[in-house]
Amino acid sequence: MQLSVQTAGSPPTSLILGPGAPVMVFDVGGTDLKYGVVDSTGRFAHQGTTPTARASQGEFLDQLSRLVAIYRAEPPERRPQAIAVNAPGIVDASTGVVVSAVNLGWTDFALSSALEARVGLPVVLGNDVQVAGLAEHRLGAAKGLRNALVLVIGTGIASAVILDGEVYDGDGYAGEIGHARMEPLTSTTAIPCTCGASGCLQTVSSASAIARNYSAVSGIAVVGAKEVMEAAAAGDAAAVGVLDQAYDGLALAIAQSVALLAPQAVIFGGGLSNAGDALLVPVADRLDSILSFHRRPLLLPARFGSSAGLLGGAVQARQLLCKERPAGGRQTPSPWRD
Amino acid sequence: MQLSVQTAGSPPTSLILGPGAPVMVFDVGGTDLKYGVVDSTGRFAHQGTTPTARASQGEFLDQLSRLVAIYRAEPPERRPQAIAVNAPGIVDASTGVVVSAVNLGWTDFALSSALEARVGLPVVLGNDVQVAGLAEHRLGAAKGLRNALVLVIGTGIASAVILDGEVYDGDGYAGEIGHARMEPLTSTTAIPCTCGASGCLQTVSSASAIARNYSAVSGIAVVGAKEVMEAAAAGDAAAVGVLDQAYDGLALAIAQSVALLAPQAVIFGGGLSNAGDALLVPVADRLDSILSFHRRPLLLPARFGSSAGLLGGAVQARQLLCKERPAGGRQTPSPWRD
Repeated sequence: MQLSVQTAGSPPTSLILGPGAPVMVFDVGGTDLKYGVVDSTGRFAHQGTTPTARASQGEFLDQLSRLVAIYRAEPPERRPQAIAVNAPGIVDASTGVVVSAVNLGWTDFALSSALEARVGLPVVLGNDVQVAGLAEHRLGAAKGLRNALVLVIGTGIASAVILDGEVYDGDGYAGEIGHARMEPLTSTTAIPCTCGASGCLQTVSSASAIARNYSAVSGIAVVGAKEVMEAAAAGDAAAVGVLDQAYDGLALAIAQSVALLAPQAVIFGGGLSNAGDALLVPVADRLDSILSFHRRPLLLPARFGSSAGLLGGAVQARQLLCKERPAGGRQTPSPWRD
Repeated sequence: MQLSVQTAGSPPTSLILGPGAPVMVFDVGGTDLKYGVVDSTGRFAHQGTTPTARASQGEFLDQLSRLVAIYRAEPPERRPQAIAVNAPGIVDASTGVVVSAVNLGWTDFALSSALEARVGLPVVLGNDVQVAGLAEHRLGAAKGLRNALVLVIGTGIASAVILDGEVYDGDGYAGEIGHARMEPLTSTTAIPCTCGASGCLQTVSSASAIARNYSAVSGIAVVGAKEVMEAAAAGDAAAVGVLDQAYDGLALAIAQSVALLAPQAVIFGGGLSNAGDALLVPVADRLDSILSFHRRPLLLPARFGSSAGLLGGAVQARQLLCKERPAGGRQTPSPWRD
């Protein structure tokens, strides 16, 4: 089975990565566990999805160990030499610890070392959004840029902040643009957010907020933002109002990021970005109208859809192996070699 | 003459830097040119202020060259081996070019190379706010922190963004938090900013905005924010209202930065920070009320006042000399040695 990589404006392809070590990637969601094995040519030799084992951390580690064991029986060109795990929530990549993943009930879970102990392979842990941003930076829409903001707009809104060519993670706490308050403190209309605060960007601009806010205003039940965009295109005033608010919020949040960080590009990923120009053009127009001397970023669609995590994880896992064995000779003792 | 370094909560001191190469620093303002010579013990051996030569770039370079020539006649322990120039505006530190300094009428001024050619010493160029932030990070309130935001609140509001232990400058465009729009796009009360945009943070929260907005509301002319804070303390409702708006703006801007970057501390510098807890406590209270799961930063007063630029420049100039002569042998040819 090969991974179908969704690319905006170009046909799906399965060869984005180049030759290198075979690696295995796990993209952990609250519901599903996606996984893939990249072979030595850079192709996804195997790929699959299975329900995430959620009963306990031990069961989850067992699940991953079993999957790794299956692929370690493959020939060398497809036998994983390193593992990447992308987890949701607050992840301290430097220590390999999931600090907090509410959807999975994990707190201070030392996932990297626990999995390494079970499978005997090096493991790199990353935050799912930041790893997807890494894929866009190394291989996708932000390729070649030093500074970029990768937005993932779906049920919530999160971002990967790429600065001076690296993902900046703020010890796992950075990138939470969906939980940046947009409303003035005196606002009487700030919408309560699931995080406990009010007026967060994602209360007006996420795909789910667009659907929910339209239903609240119109009384019409919808399942997603796509229906709201279709209703707006057909002249539905309530839909236009809800989308205006969503686009206003995105433009405002981007303008603030532009003032502080001056990204060369803002990349739009996540489900809402499937709207393409119907999303990018109104946000760009608003952004243009509120910036002055600032360095204006390119607004671009993400290249990779839901495959970004597997691709970014593969980059991370291969990078981990390079770190273990630097070109000029080993610099730190590695438990993985010799 | 020795430089009096203002420190919050501790007596002024003139020995903040350690032993190292003697260097000279210029802190260029639209009105005044401040300069200092740090000797080999780390003391400011000389320090002075003179009106900035503004007639032309050539005259400005002549002014700096004359001052350098004076101190090159000093004994070796006080003879500058490198020069730091801190300029306002958009500065590309990597190329040594002032991209734009409106107050000085400079555009694409290759200051570093022009001054190097005249004085025959290595020159490092930096943005004044970012160099002040560097001083706070290396020597002051943000010492030992990996990630911090240093706010400079005076006539305007600017910031130095310290990420993973380095000042992030976004090719010279980063840190412009004073020109981050705070008002929703639909706001009818967004105040026009000098930058051409509206609703920027500094239209409500800078020291000059506090004075100006109070005068507009009360009809009472004041020269600075201090008078407004005194009036508020005495129960003046107009002053309380203007300060509420200023503190709300700062808390909102900080909350947004916290969501995106998760700084470990926010350092308050610039004239308004002289208010101390009268500023920090109301901002901290507001910030606490609008954050949820976010990593909450320490709010701290800057250690250095107007001396931060000279100190940070001295760090940069000494660092430049180290780069010219790496410990493991020279890595790039240097025109300055041998």
